[in-house]
Amino acid sequence: MIDRLCIIGVGLIGGSLALALRRANHVKEIVGTSRRRDHLQTAVDLGVIDRFDLDARQAVDGADVVVLAVPLGVMQTLCEHIKPAFRTHTVLTDVGSSKTSVVQAVANAFGVLPAGFVPGHPIAGTERSGVEAAYAELYQDRRVILTPVETTSERALQTVHDMWAATGAIVEETSVEHHDQVLAATSHLPHMLAFGLVDSLARMSDHDEIFRYAAGGFRDFTRIASSDPTMWRDICIANKEPLVTMIARYQDDLEIIREAIEQRDGDALLEIFTRAKQARDRFIIG
Amino acid sequence: MIDRLCIIGVGLIGGSLALALRRANHVKEIVGTSRRRDHLQTAVDLGVIDRFDLDARQAVDGADVVVLAVPLGVMQTLCEHIKPAFRTHTVLTDVGSSKTSVVQAVANAFGVLPAGFVPGHPIAGTERSGVEAAYAELYQDRRVILTPVETTSERALQTVHDMWAATGAIVEETSVEHHDQVLAATSHLPHMLAFGLVDSLARMSDHDEIFRYAAGGFRDFTRIASSDPTMWRDICIANKEPLVTMIARYQDDLEIIREAIEQRDGDALLEIFTRAKQARDRFIIG
Repeated sequence: MIDRLCIIGVGLIGGSLALALRRANHVKEIVGTSRRRDHLQTAVDLGVIDRFDLDARQAVDGADVVVLAVPLGVMQTLCEHIKPAFRTHTVLTDVGSSKTSVVQAVANAFGVLPAGFVPGHPIAGTERSGVEAAYAELYQDRRVILTPVETTSERALQTVHDMWAATGAIVEETSVEHHDQVLAATSHLPHMLAFGLVDSLARMSDHDEIFRYAAGGFRDFTRIASSDPTMWRDICIANKEPLVTMIARYQDDLEIIREAIEQRDGDALLEIFTRAKQARDRFIIG
Repeated sequence: MIDRLCIIGVGLIGGSLALALRRANHVKEIVGTSRRRDHLQTAVDLGVIDRFDLDARQAVDGADVVVLAVPLGVMQTLCEHIKPAFRTHTVLTDVGSSKTSVVQAVANAFGVLPAGFVPGHPIAGTERSGVEAAYAELYQDRRVILTPVETTSERALQTVHDMWAATGAIVEETSVEHHDQVLAATSHLPHMLAFGLVDSLARMSDHDEIFRYAAGGFRDFTRIASSDPTMWRDICIANKEPLVTMIARYQDDLEIIREAIEQRDGDALLEIFTRAKQARDRFIIG
C-alpha cells in the first residue's frame, strides 16, 4: 500500500496506472501534476487523481512514491525542479522507453543517483494518448521492465515492483543496456519502419488513390504510425545508439531481400519468408 | 446470375467467393478443381462447391465463368491445360495480386488474349488460408480492382463486375500498370518490411527474449509476416519491377530517418513523424 503517490504527467500511461492502483486498493492518495490545468481538472473529474498541484515540486512534497510519466525530453529539467522536495525515503520511478537516457537525466539533475530511484518501463500503451484514453486494465498481463542500477536500494525496488504487480502486470528485471537494445529491436525500429512507410507513400503524387486501395493488412501494419510524433522524436534521440545499430542491421537485411527479388531468386525469398512466418507463429500469438 | 461457375483453387479466396455468390443467389452451380482431392471433398462437405473434378480441363468444360484462384506461379501452366475446354463465350477472370504477370501468362498460354478474359484482384484476405478459413462476408465493402485490357469484351467485363458486386464488394477499374504500382506500395512493400523485420529479429542470438518483450504494436505490425511464404515468393517475382522500385524508394527514405537520428536532428524527425501520422489519421480508419 502506498500512502501518497505523485504522478507527474497524467496522460494515458500515468492515468491508467492511477486507475489500476485505485482498483487494486494499493494507494491511499494520488496527487497529479502537469503543465496543463485543464488536463489535471479532467483527471480529477474522471476520478483518476484525488487532487493536483500545477507546481511539480509542491506535488512531490510529502509523496512516498513519485512516478515520472513525462516525455523523455523533459526528464532532466523536471528532476532539477523537483529535487528540493525529494527526501531520502522518497521512491522515484519513471515509465520512459529508453533507460540509459533517463538514468543520465536523473544523474545530471541529482548529482548522484538517489537510492530511491528505480528506472522502469511498462511495455504497454496504444496509439491514443491523454487522460481520457486511460483505463484500469491497460497493464493487465503486460510486461513491466525494471532496470535497477547499482545505487538502487532493495526497499525502493520492492516498492516499485509491488506497485506494478498490483496493476496486474508481469514485472521483470534486466539491465539498462539490455532493455534499450531489446526495445530498439521490438518497438523503436518497427515504429521507424511504419512512420517511414506512411510518409513515403504520403509524398507520392497519387497518394489519395494509394491509401484508398490499402487493405486490412496495411491498416494493422501502419497503426503505430499514428503514435505521438513528439514522443517518438524524443525516443529516437534518447535511444540513438541502439536504434541506429538496429536500423543499419535492418537495412542490410532489406537489401538482401531487394537483391533476391531483383535476381528472381525464389529459393532465397522462400527461405526468408518461411523463417519469418515460423518465428512469428511460434512466438507471437494473434 | 451465373449458370455454371468454375473455381480453380478452392482456398480462402476462391471458397469465400463461392460462399458469397451462393448467399447472394447469384450462381446456379459451382464446380471446383484443385490438385488435392481431400481439399475439394472438404469444400463439398462445407457446402462451398456443388461438385468437383480433379482435372481442371474437365471442370472448366461447360462453365460460363472460370475463376483462376491459384498462385501466380502456376497460372500459365494451368491456362495451357484448360485452353482446349475454353469456348468463345467463356468468361475468364483471376484473383492474382500482380496483373502484368497474369496477363502475360494468359497471353502465353492462349496465343492471344481471349475477349472473355478480365484480369481482376480482390483486395481482401487474411493471413490464414485454406477452404476452412473461407467465409461469405470476406468481400463485403472491400475493393475489387478489375484491369480490363484492350481485348476484353464489354460483356465479359460486365459479367465479372456483376459477380463481384454480388459479393458486397466495391468494384473499381484501373490499368494493369497502375494496379501493379499501387499494390507494390500498399501491400507488397509492407509485406517485405514485415517479413524482413521478423526474420532480422529471429536471427538475433537472444531472439527468445526479444519476442517475449514484444508488445501489442509489434503484434499488429508483424501480423502480415504470418502470410503464406510460397504465395509471397510468387508475388515478388511476378511484380518484380514495381516492387524493386518501391523498395529502393523506401530505402532512401529510411536512410534519411537513420541519418536524422544519427545527427539528433529532432526537427527533421518531428516533421517526418507528423506528416506520417496526419496522413494515416486522414486516410486510414482504425
